[in-house]
Amino acid sequence: MPRRSIVVIAEFSVHPIGSGTSVGRYVKTALRAISKIQGLKYQVTPMSTVFEAKDIETILHAVEVSHKALRSMGVKRISSSLRVDERLDKPRTMRDKVVSVQV
Amino acid sequence: MPRRSIVVIAEFSVHPIGSGTSVGRYVKTALRAISKIQGLKYQVTPMSTVFEAKDIETILHAVEVSHKALRSMGVKRISSSLRVDERLDKPRTMRDKVVSVQV
Amino acid sequence: MPRRSIVVIAEFSVHPIGSGTSVGRYVKTALRAISKIQGLKYQVTPMSTVFEAKDIETILHAVEVSHKALRSMGVKRISSSLRVDERLDKPRTMRDKVVSVQV
Amino acid sequence: MPRRSIVVIAEFSVHPIGSGTSVGRYVKTALRAISKIQGLKYQVTPMSTVFEAKDIETILHAVEVSHKALRSMGVKRISSSLRVDERLDKPRTMRDKVVSVQV
Repeated sequence: MPRRSIVVIAEFSVHPIGSGTSVGRYVKTALRAISKIQGLKYQVTPMSTVFEAKDIETILHAVEVSHKALRSMGVKRISSSLRVDERLDKPRTMRDKVVSVQV
Repeated sequence: MPRRSIVVIAEFSVHPIGSGTSVGRYVKTALRAISKIQGLKYQVTPMSTVFEAKDIETILHAVEVSHKALRSMGVKRISSSLRVDERLDKPRTMRDKVVSVQV
Repeated sequence: MPRRSIVVIAEFSVHPIGSGTSVGRYVKTALRAISKIQGLKYQVTPMSTVFEAKDIETILHAVEVSHKALRSMGVKRISSSLRVDERLDKPRTMRDKVVSVQV
Repeated sequence: MPRRSIVVIAEFSVHPIGSGTSVGRYVKTALRAISKIQGLKYQVTPMSTVFEAKDIETILHAVEVSHKALRSMGVKRISSSLRVDERLDKPRTMRDKVVSVQV
Protein backbone atom coordinates (compact mmCIF):
# COMPACT_ATOMS: atom_id res chain seq x y z
CA MET A 1 0.00 0.00 0.00
CA PRO A 2 1.72 3.18 -1.13
CA ARG A 3 1.58 6.09 1.32
CA ARG A 4 -0.08 9.23 0.07
CA SER A 5 0.39 12.81 1.08
CA ILE A 6 -2.62 14.50 2.65
CA VAL A 7 -1.64 17.99 1.66
CA VAL A 8 1.38 19.66 0.09
CA ILE A 9 2.10 23.33 0.72
CA ALA A 10 4.98 25.09 -1.01
CA GLU A 11 6.39 28.52 -1.71
CA PHE A 12 7.73 29.41 -5.13
CA SER A 13 9.51 32.40 -6.58
CA VAL A 14 10.75 32.98 -10.12
CA HIS A 15 12.54 35.87 -11.84
CA PRO A 16 14.64 36.49 -14.93
CA ILE A 17 18.32 37.42 -14.51
CA GLY A 18 19.51 40.13 -16.88
CA SER A 19 16.12 41.54 -17.92
CA GLY A 20 16.13 44.75 -15.84
CA THR A 21 15.46 45.33 -12.15
CA SER A 22 11.66 45.44 -12.44
CA VAL A 23 10.42 41.93 -12.92
CA GLY A 24 6.72 42.36 -12.10
CA ARG A 25 5.47 41.69 -15.62
CA TYR A 26 7.31 38.37 -15.74
CA VAL A 27 5.86 37.29 -12.42
CA LYS A 28 2.39 38.32 -13.62
CA THR A 29 2.68 36.18 -16.74
CA ALA A 30 3.78 33.21 -14.65
CA LEU A 31 0.88 33.72 -12.24
CA ARG A 32 -1.62 33.89 -15.09
CA ALA A 33 -0.38 30.52 -16.35
CA ILE A 34 -0.42 29.04 -12.85
CA SER A 35 -3.97 30.21 -12.19
CA LYS A 36 -5.26 27.76 -14.82
CA ILE A 37 -3.89 24.67 -13.10
CA GLN A 38 -6.62 22.38 -11.79
CA GLY A 39 -6.39 21.46 -8.12
CA LEU A 40 -3.90 24.19 -7.26
CA LYS A 41 -4.70 26.91 -4.74
CA TYR A 42 -2.30 29.82 -4.56
CA GLN A 43 -1.73 32.99 -2.61
CA VAL A 44 0.71 35.80 -3.44
CA THR A 45 3.08 37.10 -0.73
CA PRO A 46 5.65 39.92 -1.03
CA MET A 47 8.45 37.41 -1.70
CA SER A 48 6.81 34.42 -3.37
CA THR A 49 3.63 32.55 -4.21
CA VAL A 50 2.33 29.95 -1.79
CA PHE A 51 0.82 26.82 -3.36
CA GLU A 52 -1.52 24.24 -1.86
CA ALA A 53 -2.38 20.95 -3.57
CA LYS A 54 -3.20 17.32 -2.84
CA ASP A 55 0.04 16.03 -4.33
CA ILE A 56 3.51 17.19 -5.19
CA GLU A 57 3.00 16.54 -8.92
CA THR A 58 0.57 19.48 -9.09
CA ILE A 59 3.08 21.74 -7.33
CA LEU A 60 5.89 20.69 -9.68
CA HIS A 61 3.63 21.26 -12.66
CA ALA A 62 3.23 24.89 -11.52
CA VAL A 63 7.02 25.27 -11.51
CA GLU A 64 7.25 23.83 -15.02
CA VAL A 65 4.48 26.10 -16.30
CA SER A 66 6.17 29.18 -14.78
CA HIS A 67 9.50 28.50 -16.45
CA LYS A 68 7.66 27.91 -19.73
CA ALA A 69 5.87 31.26 -19.34
CA LEU A 70 9.15 33.13 -18.87
CA ARG A 71 10.82 31.29 -21.75
CA SER A 72 7.96 32.35 -24.02
CA MET A 73 8.66 35.99 -23.06
CA GLY A 74 12.19 35.73 -24.43
CA VAL A 75 14.19 35.91 -21.20
CA LYS A 76 17.75 34.59 -21.40
CA ARG A 77 18.21 33.24 -17.90
CA ILE A 78 15.65 32.15 -15.30
CA SER A 79 16.23 31.77 -11.57
CA SER A 80 13.62 30.09 -9.39
CA SER A 81 13.28 28.84 -5.86
CA LEU A 82 10.85 26.28 -4.40
CA ARG A 83 10.39 25.12 -0.82
CA VAL A 84 8.00 22.21 -0.23
CA ASP A 85 6.28 21.02 2.96
CA GLU A 86 4.55 17.67 2.41
CA ARG A 87 2.53 16.21 5.25
CA LEU A 88 1.47 12.62 5.55
CA ASP A 89 0.31 12.64 9.15
CA LYS A 90 -2.41 15.26 9.27
CA PRO A 91 -4.14 17.78 7.02
CA ARG A 92 -2.94 21.37 7.21
CA THR A 93 -4.20 24.07 4.87
CA MET A 94 -2.36 27.30 4.05
CA ARG A 95 -4.70 29.06 6.48
CA ASP A 96 -4.10 26.56 9.31
CA LYS A 97 -0.37 27.09 9.06
CA VAL A 98 -0.65 30.84 9.62
CA VAL A 99 -3.15 30.46 12.49
CA SER A 100 -0.97 27.87 14.26
CA VAL A 101 1.89 30.30 14.79
CA GLN A 102 -0.08 33.40 15.72
CA VAL A 103 1.65 35.06 18.65
CA MET B 1 30.17 57.86 -1.00
CA PRO B 2 28.94 54.43 0.03
CA ARG B 3 25.76 53.22 -1.64
CA ARG B 4 22.89 52.46 0.68
CA SER B 5 19.94 50.18 0.26
CA ILE B 6 16.54 51.85 0.18
CA VAL B 7 14.62 48.86 1.40
CA VAL B 8 15.36 45.22 2.07
CA ILE B 9 12.58 42.63 1.92
CA ALA B 10 13.24 39.01 2.83
CA GLU B 11 11.48 35.76 3.61
CA PHE B 12 12.65 33.55 6.44
CA SER B 13 11.67 30.13 7.70
CA VAL B 14 13.07 28.15 10.61
CA HIS B 15 12.29 24.74 12.10
CA PRO B 16 13.94 22.13 14.31
CA ILE B 17 14.88 18.75 12.80
CA GLY B 18 14.16 15.80 15.05
CA SER B 19 11.72 17.46 17.47
CA GLY B 20 8.47 15.99 16.16
CA THR B 21 6.37 16.86 13.13
CA SER B 22 4.48 19.76 14.75
CA VAL B 23 6.82 22.70 14.96
CA GLY B 24 4.33 25.51 15.60
CA ARG B 25 5.48 26.25 19.15
CA TYR B 26 9.08 26.70 17.99
CA VAL B 27 8.03 29.09 15.24
CA LYS B 28 5.91 31.01 17.76
CA THR B 29 8.85 31.45 20.13
CA ALA B 30 11.02 32.68 17.28
CA LEU B 31 8.31 35.14 16.18
CA ARG B 32 7.94 36.49 19.71
CA ALA B 33 11.67 37.23 19.80
CA ILE B 34 11.60 38.77 16.32
CA SER B 35 8.65 41.04 17.19
CA LYS B 36 10.88 43.00 19.59
CA ILE B 37 13.42 44.03 16.95
CA GLN B 38 13.39 47.78 16.28
CA GLY B 39 12.95 48.80 12.66
CA LEU B 40 11.72 45.40 11.51
CA LYS B 41 8.28 44.94 9.99
CA TYR B 42 7.11 41.38 9.51
CA GLN B 43 4.19 39.43 8.13
CA VAL B 44 3.48 35.71 8.55
CA THR B 45 2.66 33.59 5.48
CA PRO B 46 1.84 29.85 5.36
CA MET B 47 5.45 28.97 4.53
CA SER B 48 7.58 31.70 6.09
CA THR B 49 7.79 35.15 7.64
CA VAL B 50 8.34 38.14 5.38
CA PHE B 51 10.63 40.86 6.77
CA GLU B 52 10.97 44.49 5.73
CA ALA B 53 13.75 46.76 7.00
CA LYS B 54 15.96 49.66 5.93
CA ASP B 55 19.12 47.58 5.91
CA ILE B 56 20.24 43.99 5.71
CA GLU B 57 21.82 44.08 9.19
CA THR B 58 18.32 44.26 10.75
CA ILE B 59 17.17 41.27 8.67
CA LEU B 60 20.23 39.22 9.64
CA HIS B 61 19.70 40.14 13.28
CA ALA B 62 16.23 38.55 13.04
CA VAL B 63 17.80 35.33 11.78
CA GLU B 64 20.31 35.33 14.65
CA VAL B 65 17.57 35.96 17.22
CA SER B 66 15.44 33.12 15.81
CA HIS B 67 18.24 30.57 16.04
CA LYS B 68 18.93 31.75 19.58
CA ALA B 69 15.25 31.30 20.48
CA LEU B 70 15.25 27.70 19.24
CA ARG B 71 18.54 26.91 20.96
CA SER B 72 17.07 28.13 24.24
CA MET B 73 14.21 25.64 23.79
CA GLY B 74 16.65 22.74 23.75
CA VAL B 75 16.37 21.64 20.12
CA LYS B 76 19.25 19.58 18.80
CA ARG B 77 19.32 20.64 15.17
CA ILE B 78 18.01 23.79 13.49
CA SER B 79 17.27 24.24 9.79
CA SER B 80 16.54 27.69 8.40
CA SER B 81 16.11 29.34 5.05
CA LEU B 82 16.42 33.04 4.09
CA ARG B 83 15.83 34.75 0.75
CA VAL B 84 16.74 38.44 0.51
CA ASP B 85 15.70 41.08 -2.02
CA GLU B 86 17.69 44.28 -1.53
CA ARG B 87 16.84 47.27 -3.70
CA LEU B 88 19.05 50.26 -4.27
CA ASP B 89 17.20 51.84 -7.17
CA LYS B 90 13.71 52.49 -5.84
CA PRO B 91 11.65 51.98 -2.69
CA ARG B 92 9.34 48.97 -2.61
CA THR B 93 7.39 47.96 0.46
CA MET B 94 6.03 44.48 1.16
CA ARG B 95 2.63 45.76 0.08
CA ASP B 96 3.92 47.27 -3.19
CA LYS B 97 5.43 43.95 -4.17
CA VAL B 98 2.13 42.11 -3.89
CA VAL B 99 0.18 44.84 -5.73
CA SER B 100 2.71 44.95 -8.60
CA VAL B 101 2.00 41.36 -9.62
CA GLN B 102 -1.77 41.31 -9.22
CA VAL B 103 -3.24 39.52 -12.21
CA MET C 1 9.21 28.43 -32.64
CA PRO C 2 9.31 27.59 -28.96
CA ARG C 3 12.46 28.62 -27.10
CA ARG C 4 14.38 25.81 -25.47
CA SER C 5 16.73 25.82 -22.55
CA ILE C 6 20.33 24.90 -23.30
CA VAL C 7 21.12 23.66 -19.84
CA VAL C 8 19.40 23.65 -16.47
CA ILE C 9 21.43 23.47 -13.27
CA ALA C 10 19.73 23.22 -9.89
CA GLU C 11 20.42 22.47 -6.25
CA PHE C 12 18.07 20.30 -4.24
CA SER C 13 17.86 19.28 -0.61
CA VAL C 14 15.32 17.06 1.13
CA HIS C 15 14.88 15.87 4.73
CA PRO C 16 12.16 14.46 6.95
CA ILE C 17 10.87 16.57 9.86
CA GLY C 18 10.28 14.61 13.06
CA SER C 19 12.32 11.50 12.23
CA GLY C 20 15.38 12.18 14.41
CA THR C 21 18.34 14.52 13.91
CA SER C 22 20.35 12.14 11.72
CA VAL C 23 18.80 12.09 8.29
CA GLY C 24 21.61 10.55 6.24
CA ARG C 25 19.81 7.30 5.49
CA TYR C 26 16.82 9.20 4.04
CA VAL C 27 19.08 11.29 1.83
CA LYS C 28 20.87 8.12 0.68
CA THR C 29 17.61 6.47 -0.35
CA ALA C 30 16.59 9.58 -2.29
CA LEU C 31 20.00 9.69 -4.02
CA ARG C 32 19.75 6.03 -5.00
CA ALA C 33 16.40 6.72 -6.67
CA ILE C 34 17.73 9.86 -8.36
CA SER C 35 20.78 8.04 -9.73
CA LYS C 36 18.52 6.00 -12.02
CA ILE C 37 17.07 9.01 -13.85
CA GLN C 38 18.16 9.16 -17.50
CA GLY C 39 19.75 12.42 -18.61
CA LEU C 40 20.39 13.68 -15.09
CA LYS C 41 23.90 14.40 -13.84
CA TYR C 42 24.30 15.03 -10.15
CA GLN C 43 26.94 15.94 -7.60
CA VAL C 44 26.62 15.85 -3.81
CA THR C 45 27.69 18.89 -1.74
CA PRO C 46 27.62 19.27 2.06
CA MET C 47 24.24 21.04 1.92
CA SER C 48 22.46 19.68 -1.16
CA THR C 49 22.69 17.81 -4.44
CA VAL C 50 23.45 19.72 -7.60
CA PHE C 51 21.59 18.57 -10.73
CA GLU C 52 22.39 19.19 -14.39
CA ALA C 53 19.98 18.34 -17.22
CA LYS C 54 18.87 19.50 -20.66
CA ASP C 55 15.41 20.52 -19.47
CA ILE C 56 13.58 21.45 -16.30
CA GLU C 57 11.24 18.45 -16.57
CA THR C 58 14.14 16.10 -15.75
CA ILE C 59 15.06 18.22 -12.71
CA LEU C 60 11.46 18.26 -11.47
CA HIS C 61 11.23 14.52 -11.96
CA ALA C 62 14.18 14.12 -9.56
CA VAL C 63 12.26 16.13 -6.94
CA GLU C 64 9.18 13.94 -7.41
CA VAL C 65 11.23 10.74 -7.14
CA SER C 66 12.94 11.98 -3.94
CA HIS C 67 9.65 12.73 -2.19
CA LYS C 68 8.35 9.33 -3.28
CA ALA C 69 11.47 7.65 -1.83
CA LEU C 70 10.96 9.32 1.56
CA ARG C 71 7.22 8.53 1.57
CA SER C 72 8.05 4.87 0.99
CA MET C 73 10.26 4.94 4.10
CA GLY C 74 7.31 5.92 6.26
CA VAL C 75 8.26 9.50 7.16
CA LYS C 76 5.41 11.73 8.31
CA ARG C 77 6.53 15.09 7.05
CA ILE C 78 8.93 16.00 4.23
CA SER C 79 10.70 19.34 3.75
CA SER C 80 12.54 20.07 0.53
CA SER C 81 14.21 22.98 -1.17
CA LEU C 82 15.03 23.51 -4.87
CA ARG C 83 16.85 26.38 -6.59
CA VAL C 84 16.92 26.35 -10.39
CA ASP C 85 19.17 28.20 -12.83
CA GLU C 86 17.93 27.79 -16.41
CA ARG C 87 19.99 29.30 -19.20
CA LEU C 88 18.76 29.97 -22.69
CA ASP C 89 21.63 32.13 -23.92
CA LYS C 90 24.69 29.94 -23.54
CA PRO C 91 25.69 26.48 -22.31
CA ARG C 92 27.14 26.27 -18.83
CA THR C 93 27.93 22.97 -17.15
CA MET C 94 28.22 22.42 -13.41
CA ARG C 95 31.98 22.51 -13.83
CA ASP C 96 31.97 25.77 -15.81
CA LYS C 97 30.02 27.50 -13.08
CA VAL C 98 32.62 26.69 -10.43
CA VAL C 99 35.56 27.66 -12.67
CA SER C 100 33.97 31.00 -13.62
CA VAL C 101 34.03 32.28 -10.05
CA GLN C 102 37.45 31.02 -9.00
CA VAL C 103 39.19 33.79 -7.08
CA MET D 1 23.69 27.82 30.94
CA PRO D 2 23.19 28.93 27.36
CA ARG D 3 23.34 26.17 24.76
CA ARG D 4 25.97 26.58 22.08
CA SER D 5 26.10 25.25 18.58
CA ILE D 6 28.88 22.81 17.82
CA VAL D 7 29.05 23.55 14.15
CA VAL D 8 27.01 25.55 11.65
CA ILE D 9 27.05 24.64 7.97
CA ALA D 10 25.20 26.76 5.43
CA GLU D 11 24.86 27.33 1.71
CA PHE D 12 24.71 30.83 0.29
CA SER D 13 24.11 32.25 -3.15
CA VAL D 14 24.00 35.89 -4.27
CA HIS D 15 23.45 37.60 -7.62
CA PRO D 16 22.42 40.98 -8.97
CA ILE D 17 19.09 41.32 -10.79
CA GLY D 18 19.22 43.54 -13.88
CA SER D 19 23.00 43.57 -14.42
CA GLY D 20 23.21 41.16 -17.37
CA THR D 21 23.02 37.37 -17.52
CA SER D 22 26.67 36.75 -16.66
CA VAL D 23 27.13 37.37 -12.98
CA GLY D 24 30.49 35.65 -12.40
CA ARG D 25 32.42 38.84 -11.65
CA TYR D 26 29.94 39.81 -8.93
CA VAL D 27 30.19 36.40 -7.30
CA LYS D 28 33.99 36.61 -7.47
CA THR D 29 34.03 39.97 -5.68
CA ALA D 30 31.75 38.61 -2.97
CA LEU D 31 33.97 35.53 -2.56
CA ARG D 32 37.09 37.67 -2.26
CA ALA D 33 35.46 39.61 0.58
CA ILE D 34 34.25 36.40 2.24
CA SER D 35 37.69 34.80 2.09
CA LYS D 36 38.99 37.34 4.61
CA ILE D 37 36.53 36.39 7.36
CA GLN D 38 38.24 34.76 10.35
CA GLY D 39 36.86 31.40 11.41
CA LEU D 40 34.93 30.82 8.19
CA LYS D 41 35.67 27.86 5.95
CA TYR D 42 34.06 27.87 2.53
CA GLN D 43 33.76 25.73 -0.56
CA VAL D 44 32.34 26.73 -3.94
CA THR D 45 29.74 24.51 -5.64
CA PRO D 46 28.06 25.05 -9.04
CA MET D 47 25.03 26.67 -7.39
CA SER D 48 26.30 28.28 -4.20
CA THR D 49 29.05 28.58 -1.62
CA VAL D 50 29.03 26.28 1.38
CA PHE D 51 30.11 27.83 4.68
CA GLU D 52 31.31 26.17 7.87
CA ALA D 53 31.79 28.04 11.15
CA LYS D 54 31.52 27.60 14.90
CA ASP D 55 28.56 29.96 15.24
CA ILE D 56 25.81 31.47 13.15
CA GLU D 57 27.10 35.01 13.67
CA THR D 58 30.12 34.23 11.45
CA ILE D 59 27.83 32.84 8.74
CA LEU D 60 25.56 35.90 8.86
CA HIS D 61 28.58 38.17 8.70
CA ALA D 62 29.52 36.51 5.39
CA VAL D 63 26.05 37.34 4.04
CA GLU D 64 26.41 40.97 5.14
CA VAL D 65 29.86 41.26 3.58
CA SER D 66 28.61 39.79 0.28
CA HIS D 67 25.76 42.27 -0.03
CA LYS D 68 28.19 45.09 0.79
CA ALA D 69 30.56 43.86 -1.95
CA LEU D 70 27.79 43.93 -4.57
CA ARG D 71 26.55 47.34 -3.41
CA SER D 72 30.06 48.70 -3.85
CA MET D 73 30.01 47.50 -7.47
CA GLY D 74 27.00 49.67 -8.21
CA VAL D 75 24.33 46.99 -8.70
CA LYS D 76 20.75 48.17 -8.37
CA ARG D 77 19.08 45.07 -6.96
CA ILE D 78 20.56 42.13 -5.06
CA SER D 79 18.97 38.72 -4.62
CA SER D 80 20.44 36.22 -2.18
CA SER D 81 19.56 32.90 -0.66
CA LEU D 82 20.86 31.25 2.53
CA ARG D 83 20.10 27.83 4.01
CA VAL D 84 21.50 27.08 7.45
CA ASP D 85 22.02 23.76 9.25
CA GLU D 86 22.99 24.32 12.89
CA ARG D 87 23.80 21.28 15.01
CA LEU D 88 23.88 21.22 18.77
CA ASP D 89 24.03 17.47 19.28
CA LYS D 90 27.16 16.37 17.47
CA PRO D 91 29.96 17.81 15.33
CA ARG D 92 29.62 17.44 11.59
CA THR D 93 32.04 19.06 9.17
CA MET D 94 31.30 19.86 5.53
CA ARG D 95 33.28 16.75 4.59
CA ASP D 96 31.39 14.49 7.03
CA LYS D 97 28.08 15.54 5.53
CA VAL D 98 29.08 14.45 2.03
CA VAL D 99 30.59 11.15 3.23
CA SER D 100 27.49 10.27 5.28
CA VAL D 101 25.24 10.14 2.21
CA GLN D 102 27.57 8.36 -0.19
CA VAL D 103 25.57 5.74 -2.05
